[in-house]
Amino acid sequence: MKVVVLRLGHRYIRDKRISTHVALVARAFGANGIVMSARDESVEESVRKITERWGGDFFVDYEGWKKFIKSWNGIIVHLTMYGIPIDETIKEIRKAKKDILVAVGSEKVPGEIFKLASYNVAIGNQPHSEVAALAIFLDRFFEGEELKKKFEGKMKILPSKDSKKVFSQKI
Amino acid sequence: MKVVVLRLGHRYIRDKRISTHVALVARAFGANGIVMSARDESVEESVRKITERWGGDFFVDYEGWKKFIKSWNGIIVHLTMYGIPIDETIKEIRKAKKDILVAVGSEKVPGEIFKLASYNVAIGNQPHSEVAALAIFLDRFFEGEELKKKFEGKMKILPSKDSKKVFSQKI
Repeated sequence: MKVVVLRLGHRYIRDKRISTHVALVARAFGANGIVMSARDESVEESVRKITERWGGDFFVDYEGWKKFIKSWNGIIVHLTMYGIPIDETIKEIRKAKKDILVAVGSEKVPGEIFKLASYNVAIGNQPHSEVAALAIFLDRFFEGEELKKKFEGKMKILPSKDSKKVFSQKI
Repeated sequence: MKVVVLRLGHRYIRDKRISTHVALVARAFGANGIVMSARDESVEESVRKITERWGGDFFVDYEGWKKFIKSWNGIIVHLTMYGIPIDETIKEIRKAKKDILVAVGSEKVPGEIFKLASYNVAIGNQPHSEVAALAIFLDRFFEGEELKKKFEGKMKILPSKDSKKVFSQKI
């Protein structure tokens, strides 16, 4: 089963740090990759550097959002504050055992997405952040197990009570 | 019991959208307010507008981070990828029943914070986002109840399967 994130409505410069956070959350919380609807090499570069150092397989691809959605064989979850509360939908989504595309927008998303999605899911019905919404969705979906995932990179943190301890493999 | 977020290491412009997301997550996930270690009126303005429309009490204050930490009467939780996994610490933090200051950094945080914190807590030991880390911490702390909080604002969403339904009180 595959989980892929689709980043909608990327506006270059204004959104690039948010898009980078979205991509890094996708990776750290167990998604297989991210598809961005607008090309931004700085986002891709940040993610590539992190994956190189910290490990794991994670892809960054580009594709028009509508084309990608129409070609998707599985469930499409659109995260939106207007949707149905996650606690009412997550069990059904998990039980379906299908590939999942998680679409996250920025301030403006194309209205069509509401009809194209299999589920419009709200992480609370208050305005906040697509970065937070994605993290909570993946955390609920994987039931917290994603935080224990092993990445096998050159760098590895040794969890510490009061300092930074990093194991770094040089060769 | 109070939960306040402390935003560390804010660099103007580069970080302002991320800081706005941090503040909006703090509000939507049940914190009482945010203290920022650098003044940025655009962040404050965004949060003020949202609170005005969507309701709730939420404050934005400014204070030097060290001074604020030293004056804090309660627990200090520093969210960092170098810390102890949240699943090993959250019960103890919850049980203490004290006011909680949740410090979230940006890329560079002052090293001293590791010693000043009561708990250095990791939301996974992979690099991702302070926005996501804060959301997961508050979600674990409030055990998901924060997503059901009522805000009583002029605007209110009527959760929908496939459209945007907003109730808006004009007067």
